[in-house]
Amino acid sequence: MEATLSLYELFKQKPIGSRLRVYGWVRNYRSNRFIALSDGSCQAQLQLVIDPETLDPETLKAITVGAALRATGDLVASQGKGQDVEIQVTELTVLGTSPSDEYPLQPKKHSMEFLREKAHLRMRTQTFGAVFRLRHHLSFAVHQFFHQRRFFYLHTPIITASDAEGAGELFNVTTLPHQQAPTDDQGKVDYRQDFFGRPTHLTVSGQLEAELGALGLSKVYTFGPTFRAENSNTPRHLAEFWMIEPEIAFADLQDDMDLAESFLQYLIQYALEHCADDLAFLDKRLAEEEKQLPKEKRQPMGLLERLRFVSQNNFRRVSYTEAVDILRQSKPNKKKKFQFPIDEWGVDLQSEHEKYLVKHFEAPVILFDYPARIKAFYMRLNEDENTVRAMDILFPGIGEIVGGSQREERLDVLRNKMEAIGIPEDDLWWYLETRKFGTCVHSGFGLGFERLVQFVTGMANIRDVIPFPRTPGNAEF
Amino acid sequence: MEATLSLYELFKQKPIGSRLRVYGWVRNYRSNRFIALSDGSCQAQLQLVIDPETLDPETLKAITVGAALRATGDLVASQGKGQDVEIQVTELTVLGTSPSDEYPLQPKKHSMEFLREKAHLRMRTQTFGAVFRLRHHLSFAVHQFFHQRRFFYLHTPIITASDAEGAGELFNVTTLPHQQAPTDDQGKVDYRQDFFGRPTHLTVSGQLEAELGALGLSKVYTFGPTFRAENSNTPRHLAEFWMIEPEIAFADLQDDMDLAESFLQYLIQYALEHCADDLAFLDKRLAEEEKQLPKEKRQPMGLLERLRFVSQNNFRRVSYTEAVDILRQSKPNKKKKFQFPIDEWGVDLQSEHEKYLVKHFEAPVILFDYPARIKAFYMRLNEDENTVRAMDILFPGIGEIVGGSQREERLDVLRNKMEAIGIPEDDLWWYLETRKFGTCVHSGFGLGFERLVQFVTGMANIRDVIPFPRTPGNAEF
Repeated sequence: MEATLSLYELFKQKPIGSRLRVYGWVRNYRSNRFIALSDGSCQAQLQLVIDPETLDPETLKAITVGAALRATGDLVASQGKGQDVEIQVTELTVLGTSPSDEYPLQPKKHSMEFLREKAHLRMRTQTFGAVFRLRHHLSFAVHQFFHQRRFFYLHTPIITASDAEGAGELFNVTTLPHQQAPTDDQGKVDYRQDFFGRPTHLTVSGQLEAELGALGLSKVYTFGPTFRAENSNTPRHLAEFWMIEPEIAFADLQDDMDLAESFLQYLIQYALEHCADDLAFLDKRLAEEEKQLPKEKRQPMGLLERLRFVSQNNFRRVSYTEAVDILRQSKPNKKKKFQFPIDEWGVDLQSEHEKYLVKHFEAPVILFDYPARIKAFYMRLNEDENTVRAMDILFPGIGEIVGGSQREERLDVLRNKMEAIGIPEDDLWWYLETRKFGTCVHSGFGLGFERLVQFVTGMANIRDVIPFPRTPGNAEF
Repeated sequence: MEATLSLYELFKQKPIGSRLRVYGWVRNYRSNRFIALSDGSCQAQLQLVIDPETLDPETLKAITVGAALRATGDLVASQGKGQDVEIQVTELTVLGTSPSDEYPLQPKKHSMEFLREKAHLRMRTQTFGAVFRLRHHLSFAVHQFFHQRRFFYLHTPIITASDAEGAGELFNVTTLPHQQAPTDDQGKVDYRQDFFGRPTHLTVSGQLEAELGALGLSKVYTFGPTFRAENSNTPRHLAEFWMIEPEIAFADLQDDMDLAESFLQYLIQYALEHCADDLAFLDKRLAEEEKQLPKEKRQPMGLLERLRFVSQNNFRRVSYTEAVDILRQSKPNKKKKFQFPIDEWGVDLQSEHEKYLVKHFEAPVILFDYPARIKAFYMRLNEDENTVRAMDILFPGIGEIVGGSQREERLDVLRNKMEAIGIPEDDLWWYLETRKFGTCVHSGFGLGFERLVQFVTGMANIRDVIPFPRTPGNAEF
């Protein structure tokens, strides 16, 4: 019997002269003779050449866009434009029809909004096929990078009772009824009767638990879903998204920056090496999209150019203080072109400033030693008692892609900080205990996975890089 | 400067004669001279030999179990028992002390219950270090197995509005207040004002969404958290656990069984090859545990024996009908030794029956073609209209480890089944559309990751194979 090959295998091996069996869905059908077939395993489509004389009329009629086919035939060199091999079909079966008056994905341009409503089908398009193959490869590269460096993958909890991070609005998780929830003596909801015996919600970060892991296993990383119940309907926000959070014991902020830089370069290099076809397609796609935009809105670099820029340039390390000096002296600041003018040390930097800095240094930028006031409580206070060992990595086009820090490892300092901002010790007794028993310098960072996928695919809207996006008012599929 | 090595690197390279720097936590300290150091990167501990004369009394006093150290010295061959190399320390710093009257993890046996309450510290023990290193390696092996076979990793949604699976009790996800939730005209909770504009909950399975992926990308897998709000306080249940669900287009139940068998064997083989030290430790540990049990409760095989048994024996494929015949004729059934006697075709099999079958065949068993009545609506109905193309894989000691099926790909049959059990078409319009547009034979299965980790580590309680278990009344850390 003939071998069955996926299109990925077929194009890799190109066994010209062999009889093969293939499966896939019709992408296009023209001249009653040429079928463009895709099985989603790669960007390339396979041309099937049929002889209409040899097929029964029922089958012929059923060859429409979206139909599922099984085809057998000989792989030959193709004379046609656009492909170097094709299959001369000897046997063809339509496994599943696709009524052409109803199938939503016709071979024409659909809007991203339309395709989002068809998220159950959009993976069948070239663009989303490319995006989700890249998402896979980037995920795998994440695991491989850490595995090779002896980090252990830690599954931190999704449901949690701790709200120490204060990172944003929370989703409540409950089994209590919404009406007539049980109440206590004081008429308040009696959470002792809830599933976990207390109020719980969806995690906003696995960092604190990752610290527990690193303080036992030396090097760990998380890669899991995190949640924000913020009512933000923007192209940059999701209510449910995936985060990667490595954490390393016996490592300071310098080590942390080294790790983050080599990590990002590894991921992008991996994509360039393993997803060349999909990236070429997305590079072209983005170039066409950009043409539609007014000049001032266009990105300074194309997709592939941007990826090479990041993977080949050393990241420039600049202290927050130095960055603020540069921004203060900058032309746009002096000419009042920034929406948020930079007057004084201590302000939080905005996206416009981050973009300016990346341009100024002609390299990805790592800012470090931020004012303590604008950063989280768990970050290591510097000796100046005014700044913390935090770092943000800024990328061209998107600004901040990574945020990290050395963690406060001194029990007394951490305790004081928690008290100052009103976190009860009882909420984080376990976190504090790691500072009491064998504490040590340790550091980590967080990477929002969808931001990375956006950067690598050039997709403008974050809803288009996760299979089934969750946003305010939208939990379909 | 001397090189810094993790203990994993040190034991791998054993650069005898080199001056090295190491970091870690004290596991044991004896004779004022010998420190057993661990950094969690591997099972083995490093012996540090100090000369008390050269260290100041403060430092000496601070060397207690759990303290974090930095040590520099020369790696030499060891004369002592239990290790082949050791470090002759020239410099030692206590980075973080560990008050010995308070540190909970003393070098003695602690109960699993006690350690569960110290989940923030238990990763520092030998047992849990081994368990979580194995958990990491098994996770990585999952990704590698699928990546090498061109499956794409699909992140299916955690928050979902669909409740079609009917797989169990659900956790509600909401941003509405528990008291005075907004109501509609009829006095019912007005979910239009909830975050997603409708009731939502935590997913019980990513399968339906994985099918959408496979029907566009051919081969996908999920690996993510899933949830059950069942009030089961047993050693086999978690409210939050991780599932792996591959799904393949153009593949039938035979292909599915082939995939599952090679997958499980790959994972176990991977663990045997990459985690030999940790498995040796756990094998010994389990053997000691088993000695405490009455004979009839002991497992027939040791840990390593069981792993080799599964990885080296072909799985035996047996139809449900054949299995019921065997069980009906079996000694324990005739002698009324089964708690649930097997009388007639159609009953659901219990753990005692599954264990009997594995023993009977002296191999892992795949049961297939189950009665339609006891299986889920999405499973492919056989031509007998009485059984479905479902399969379960049974392992020694634990019974069912994998459940899978060929999916019903025929629109009309699927619709009828949904109607029969009362699933509104509107709830699953997107699922049905994949049967309308280019439907095809496809199959998949689910593996509960913690069950696998239990099988490979020999841990009796499922709470001891996930870092921070979620169970009724417990959401600590």
